Amino acid sequence: MTVTDGIEPSELRIDGDRLLQRLAGLAEIGAIAGTEGCSRLAFTDADRDGRDLVVTWMQDLGLTVTIDGIGNVVGTWVPDGVDPALAPVMTGSHIDTVATGGRYDGNLGVLAGLEVIETLLGAGHAPERPLAVTVFSNEEGARFPPDMMGSLVYVGGMAVEEALAVDGIDGSRVGAELDRIGYRGSAPSPGLTPHAFVELHIEQGPVLEREGIRIGAVESVQGISWTEVTIEGQSNHAGTTPMALRHDAGYAAARLATRMRELATELGPPQVATVGAIDLHPNLVNVVAARAVLTVDLRHTDDAVLTEAERRLDVELEAIAAAEGVSISTRRLARFEPVIFDPTVVGLVEATAGDLDLSTRRMPSGAGHDAQMLSRICPSAMIFTPSRDGISHNPAEHTDPDDLVAGSDVLLQVMLRLAAR
Amino acid sequence: MTVTDGIEPSELRIDGDRLLQRLAGLAEIGAIAGTEGCSRLAFTDADRDGRDLVVTWMQDLGLTVTIDGIGNVVGTWVPDGVDPALAPVMTGSHIDTVATGGRYDGNLGVLAGLEVIETLLGAGHAPERPLAVTVFSNEEGARFPPDMMGSLVYVGGMAVEEALAVDGIDGSRVGAELDRIGYRGSAPSPGLTPHAFVELHIEQGPVLEREGIRIGAVESVQGISWTEVTIEGQSNHAGTTPMALRHDAGYAAARLATRMRELATELGPPQVATVGAIDLHPNLVNVVAARAVLTVDLRHTDDAVLTEAERRLDVELEAIAAAEGVSISTRRLARFEPVIFDPTVVGLVEATAGDLDLSTRRMPSGAGHDAQMLSRICPSAMIFTPSRDGISHNPAEHTDPDDLVAGSDVLLQVMLRLAAR
Repeated sequence: MTVTDGIEPSELRIDGDRLLQRLAGLAEIGAIAGTEGCSRLAFTDADRDGRDLVVTWMQDLGLTVTIDGIGNVVGTWVPDGVDPALAPVMTGSHIDTVATGGRYDGNLGVLAGLEVIETLLGAGHAPERPLAVTVFSNEEGARFPPDMMGSLVYVGGMAVEEALAVDGIDGSRVGAELDRIGYRGSAPSPGLTPHAFVELHIEQGPVLEREGIRIGAVESVQGISWTEVTIEGQSNHAGTTPMALRHDAGYAAARLATRMRELATELGPPQVATVGAIDLHPNLVNVVAARAVLTVDLRHTDDAVLTEAERRLDVELEAIAAAEGVSISTRRLARFEPVIFDPTVVGLVEATAGDLDLSTRRMPSGAGHDAQMLSRICPSAMIFTPSRDGISHNPAEHTDPDDLVAGSDVLLQVMLRLAAR
Repeated sequence: MTVTDGIEPSELRIDGDRLLQRLAGLAEIGAIAGTEGCSRLAFTDADRDGRDLVVTWMQDLGLTVTIDGIGNVVGTWVPDGVDPALAPVMTGSHIDTVATGGRYDGNLGVLAGLEVIETLLGAGHAPERPLAVTVFSNEEGARFPPDMMGSLVYVGGMAVEEALAVDGIDGSRVGAELDRIGYRGSAPSPGLTPHAFVELHIEQGPVLEREGIRIGAVESVQGISWTEVTIEGQSNHAGTTPMALRHDAGYAAARLATRMRELATELGPPQVATVGAIDLHPNLVNVVAARAVLTVDLRHTDDAVLTEAERRLDVELEAIAAAEGVSISTRRLARFEPVIFDPTVVGLVEATAGDLDLSTRRMPSGAGHDAQMLSRICPSAMIFTPSRDGISHNPAEHTDPDDLVAGSDVLLQVMLRLAAR
């Protein structure tokens, strides 16, 4: 490790103003007027514009930029004197958002990665290994299932061809959209196996803020189960059809949604259950709905409990079909088992936060993240910073600038230590 | 009354083939491929094309066609020797449909009216008064609330200007759409008061078919209450937000929908309650919904019970707002008190069916109809024919040809008798 300008590497700190400027610059793309939020659904024009900006920044830093078949963008820095054949320490996250998202979810992890490299370049300090910053495609899954598509493909969990053939909620297809925005690259999938992976992300939940803790050392990720449920009933006149003769797909959907709340209550925290999308057909005031399509999002840190939740969902679907005389079919949109991160990397995050005098705790992640995919192929963990009021996937999403900077400083030091191992 | 060709007027029968041909011809406009159904939402291009066809048929019969400010089309026949100043016996209905409707709902009443006149013209028989056939605008209310808009304006229950300013579910406005399709006429509103009004319509419910009865003498119409409910919660991450901290507009909407089913059960038949439309925002699998807009359709033949149902809806909205921490606002889309038809006209329908050897019963209507508006200004009633399996507002809507013809024969004889009174 080289010491430059008399500053110990452990004393290096990122440039907070520069980080905040990049965050603000990226947030202008797809900005939701009148809010701090962003709308950059995966593979849209806004996603392309955001990618273009980040790639420009990568090139300005002299990084080698590669793009793979699902559009993952990797910017790699091989410091002078470092063997380019050494596996890099990788960080990264995503820049796609939900339709009405915030400006920090994902973006922070990518831009903090750039900031780490620029800080080291500015200090003239070369880590012992290459460093890489990755923009993973379509982490949100809000337009194309599953979520974490890009990182899943990166680690070999899904074939590129399969991902390219996915149809989106708007009838578009991944491959066509990726071609349209010019981000279908030629780098191989699965991608290069990193030496280690660490991702900085906002918590998106209320725990850190409530406990007044600044850094979360994320040791696990909840398992995720997404199911699309299609209910076929019979459209009929809302005035002339006696209640007992109805096959009301809308009522069946509503019953399922209320039952999912009960299911979460029965299984208890950390079980969560969400029906976030409901579409009725023909969706008119005076017509009993013929068809309902809705989504069920179930998550738990314990795969056995998550599997039990799925079983109860199936039982309820059978009960509704029998009681309402409707036919029900399901499609699995996503299923990821709970993930346990590498204890060594988790410990390194915790220790580093302590060394920087930042309060810290170990915690699970309620959300899915690209790091959970990378953990399949290399030692991985995550760094969380607090979210105000626990709000995320919402334009009101906010993390205090001090916390953004503190998290980035932890990222810098963790990457240096990982490179030295 | 003139007797022609040796046939007593009471022995006149309509031409079933001609009626069925007109029904089939009109059903081609807005036909839903692969079904018997139609999609002719009010004031769309399909509605215009359907109107054009009916107006052509009216003109072919030599009727005087007038169009008023909300697009109601009245075709009037003044037989030779009849004082044109005499108030006409009017029939009619509507030709707009729900988005996925059938071919008989409304259309039968209009085309049977034309058939009555053509039958009398063909027989050379002049009734004692003018006869009129009206196509009332936007009876369904599926695109623009309220339903029965045209007949409501016709009887002076709603100002033309107010109706023209109504915004539709697709963001369009009645006035602009009416101008666009060229059906904003100059005839005055309220319209001419008829001597009497009788409407032929399919039952749209299961009662006649179940009891094996061919003609319903409709003596009342259920009251209708339509409410649009807007629920504002807080969008948030479906994985990281503990259940107890959610303000889930989607769950609140589902709870309301299930509660409306319970409400109908508590109040018992003929109370019906329908949540036919639900729209969530942002409507994504992994985002707790920030906003839900849904509709509640409540109907009962007794206004006191209907008012009680509305009260219980309000109570439930307050309970949901308090329990879920969401804010709820409502908008009344339509409210019509139950209607009691003129006992003399109802009795005439019943007696006429008997004279034609058709089984008959008195019954209420579960659906709203233009006749209930006309009953505000003149003696009115309705004739129902059976609906197969009680299905309506559905492309599978069906009434047997024999029943279509029988209902039209009853209409013919009832109109003749009303003209003679």
